[in-house]
Amino acid sequence: MTEARARRRGRGGGGAARRAERNAVSFETAKYIERNIPNLEILNDEAIEIIEYNAETVLEEIGVNFVENPAALARWKEAGADVDGERVRIPRGLARELCKTAPSQFTQHARNPERSVVIGGNNLVLAPVYGPPFVRDIDGGRRYATMADFEKFVKLGYMSKWLHHSGGTVCEPTDVPVNKRHLDMLMAHMELSDKPFMGSVTAPERAQDTVDMCGILFGKDFVQQNTVTTSLININSPMQFDDVMMGALEVFAENNQAAIISPFIVGGAMAPVSVTGTLTQVLAEVMAGVAYSQLIRKGAPVIAGTFVSSIDMNSGAPTFGTPEAAKITYGCGQLFRRLGLPYRSAGSFNGSKLPDAQAAYETANSLNAGLLAGVNFMLHSCGWLEGGLVSSFEKFVMDADQLGVLHGIASGVAHDKNAQAMDAIREVGPGGHYLGCAHTQANFQSAFWRSDVLDYKPFETWEEEGGKDTYQLAAEKVQKMLSDYQKPSMDAGIHEALTSYVAEKKASMPDAFS
Amino acid sequence: MTEARARRRGRGGGGAARRAERNAVSFETAKYIERNIPNLEILNDEAIEIIEYNAETVLEEIGVNFVENPAALARWKEAGADVDGERVRIPRGLARELCKTAPSQFTQHARNPERSVVIGGNNLVLAPVYGPPFVRDIDGGRRYATMADFEKFVKLGYMSKWLHHSGGTVCEPTDVPVNKRHLDMLMAHMELSDKPFMGSVTAPERAQDTVDMCGILFGKDFVQQNTVTTSLININSPMQFDDVMMGALEVFAENNQAAIISPFIVGGAMAPVSVTGTLTQVLAEVMAGVAYSQLIRKGAPVIAGTFVSSIDMNSGAPTFGTPEAAKITYGCGQLFRRLGLPYRSAGSFNGSKLPDAQAAYETANSLNAGLLAGVNFMLHSCGWLEGGLVSSFEKFVMDADQLGVLHGIASGVAHDKNAQAMDAIREVGPGGHYLGCAHTQANFQSAFWRSDVLDYKPFETWEEEGGKDTYQLAAEKVQKMLSDYQKPSMDAGIHEALTSYVAEKKASMPDAFS
Repeated sequence: MTEARARRRGRGGGGAARRAERNAVSFETAKYIERNIPNLEILNDEAIEIIEYNAETVLEEIGVNFVENPAALARWKEAGADVDGERVRIPRGLARELCKTAPSQFTQHARNPERSVVIGGNNLVLAPVYGPPFVRDIDGGRRYATMADFEKFVKLGYMSKWLHHSGGTVCEPTDVPVNKRHLDMLMAHMELSDKPFMGSVTAPERAQDTVDMCGILFGKDFVQQNTVTTSLININSPMQFDDVMMGALEVFAENNQAAIISPFIVGGAMAPVSVTGTLTQVLAEVMAGVAYSQLIRKGAPVIAGTFVSSIDMNSGAPTFGTPEAAKITYGCGQLFRRLGLPYRSAGSFNGSKLPDAQAAYETANSLNAGLLAGVNFMLHSCGWLEGGLVSSFEKFVMDADQLGVLHGIASGVAHDKNAQAMDAIREVGPGGHYLGCAHTQANFQSAFWRSDVLDYKPFETWEEEGGKDTYQLAAEKVQKMLSDYQKPSMDAGIHEALTSYVAEKKASMPDAFS
Repeated sequence: MTEARARRRGRGGGGAARRAERNAVSFETAKYIERNIPNLEILNDEAIEIIEYNAETVLEEIGVNFVENPAALARWKEAGADVDGERVRIPRGLARELCKTAPSQFTQHARNPERSVVIGGNNLVLAPVYGPPFVRDIDGGRRYATMADFEKFVKLGYMSKWLHHSGGTVCEPTDVPVNKRHLDMLMAHMELSDKPFMGSVTAPERAQDTVDMCGILFGKDFVQQNTVTTSLININSPMQFDDVMMGALEVFAENNQAAIISPFIVGGAMAPVSVTGTLTQVLAEVMAGVAYSQLIRKGAPVIAGTFVSSIDMNSGAPTFGTPEAAKITYGCGQLFRRLGLPYRSAGSFNGSKLPDAQAAYETANSLNAGLLAGVNFMLHSCGWLEGGLVSSFEKFVMDADQLGVLHGIASGVAHDKNAQAMDAIREVGPGGHYLGCAHTQANFQSAFWRSDVLDYKPFETWEEEGGKDTYQLAAEKVQKMLSDYQKPSMDAGIHEALTSYVAEKKASMPDAFS
């Protein structure tokens, strides 16, 4: 739509109009990616058979722990599992069978219906960084994140064309008490953006606040009949499901709200050092977690997740963008598709302290793998720095720009008459030049993806303008986006009701900082 | 082998030995990549059929120009083409038929037989940047390249574990006369490295010098019976074959030496703006060029190449790491495999002026696409900067390090008993930790790829050590590699013969600088 609008504007005015066009504020959001390319499948049939068999062996013989959660143990016992203390051993085939009631795709509604997303199938929904306690920007360096930082990230996400989802804890607002910050975070996503968002998982009552606030925003009935939030439920690998995360899952599943059920793995620490060993454990954990969600409510929407990094055996640091992570990302795609579940993995992962070349290599490695592995929901798709300790403003816009590359690749190759361009080849002929030909003129505006951050200038111009690197260019882009930001409109009554809910909830609790 | 050696050393000594191990000079070169993963195929059957049909239409109806090359025109006429002036129209099917005598894979011998490479099949051979007139380093900035720079790049290539090939014009040594610099460049590759290398293509007589110097290095008979050099023959797209490049091709093909036959395309300028249109033209050009190589000598080894970038319609600059380039890279892989030819594409392409995040994103996008597209020979796999105007020392080692990621992904997923790691999963159990378990101890040294350039340190250590970005870390690595460099040994007689050849040739010509 922006392009059409831009073209209309462009007609009358020549150079000045084109400049205005380039400077126009865009609130356009691309539709979630619908892949028109195949997935890369690196596991052969034998490997899949072995991994699936071994995962069932893990569940049957070793089992998983559901910690401090008697209700979960009772549910498992009733479903036919062997429960011994907190250990749940699941007979071969049972977990896979239970997973079958989970939908293979579902719609997460946004308050702006144009921005609702369909998660699963051939789709890829992109969401920003989640969880860092620190932020970094080019001027202020690295510091603890605040609610003001949080709001800036939500605004940047709203303004980012290739980002479909507002995410959740885009950084931890450490200046707000731990037991109240989820309210401010939810309010920010609801008010400052109209893209879909994530809920709170740090306590069952905070999950309930999420559901209640969504009830105000979307209407209570709508929430019971539709999915309006997707939340991140981590498994405490290896093979442990803690009561806080499961408590949140229970609230969301009971209310038909979506959960990503995701082992959190630093390979060599929380899983074996081998790819196949890790895939086996991840599959077992995901099957147990998804099966449990279906014990809570058959048909509850879930996403089979994996978060993988390797470990650097010299420093003990997690490492990112590695070949092992890529292979696990590809492998999980195959295994989870065979479960018929939407898949979450990959992101702007990197271990760098700065948004430099290391950050970009590692990020691009993961983004490319995520696209080609068939990921359906990519959390952390922009803004992640320093192994997830830091949300970076500059890297947020750098990565968000690169997400356009994923859209372009995923669109596949058109081969209609216009795409064949035989008339252009005939018109130009040997030794000719395509710039002026009719086909180029008719198609150039949509033919090539164009970065909105990176430098395409001639060397001399670039040098005259200060010889800026990507970090500096991105810092300028951040400022421009924040100054251009305009809040999406919201019904005044809903806004007041949400504000009151947050105020009342906050007043009802003492502050807690840990 | 280095790892085994390192382990032997490690046994006796504890910490000091491990430090020594980490600091040991390595001249190890990894074997060329033998893919154990599938290729990504993004064109469906209908698209392939259309592109192949249209490419034949281009050859038959529009034709290609062989410029100032009567011998070529005569060869084409004899082969059954319709020759009209310099225009050669090739009947449908003829070019594809002629391509069939080109080998689907061939060995390029190195003077160190352990470093010979097999080009084609599932293999991927990695070679460095080719052609830039400028160099850049962190201290000296951007400047015209000299022979001293050239030699440094050859040394870095020799020392780079993941680089299989020494390349060709790693930068243009502008301080040596144009008509003599190929002699110094060849001498540098032959003397300072023992990896395979490329020949000169800037004039037929310089191609002949390549063949003659190879005769000294490998023995004349060996050269006639084996391929000892691979050279880059660009097509002057659209559809034009100039006499200089074709003259060099003729010399190499006659002498059984390999040539990459490669359209050089900035999309929208030298080819249509659409992916399918570009694929059509590239296929037509490659078929014509490869067919011509087989008219010179049936069975001459060739590589079907493509170099693609998009154009930025605002600045006219070529752009890299774009979705369109990725799709052309994938598509060409499918089309060229159907011709039964080895495939050259992708590389460390980027448009950035500095080895920053832009450079790394764009490079990683291209490297990943090249790996998964089934590229067999990747020229420019490290060191490229600023759209090919600059060879960067720091980026050379940064990229060369990332090539290790490609090796790791390509190795695929083992699923033997050790890889399954079921004993580890049993040993550790729910809530446990894998770091100390027997499987981890037995496998950790080879389990994870580890960067040799990037930063994996804890934040505090990194900050204490000066908070260096990748550019600075790479600059230190460049210095270390150059100071550790040791020349591979060479037979004194051969060295003297090569030196004499170069001296005599140089003495026989006046200096030319353009």
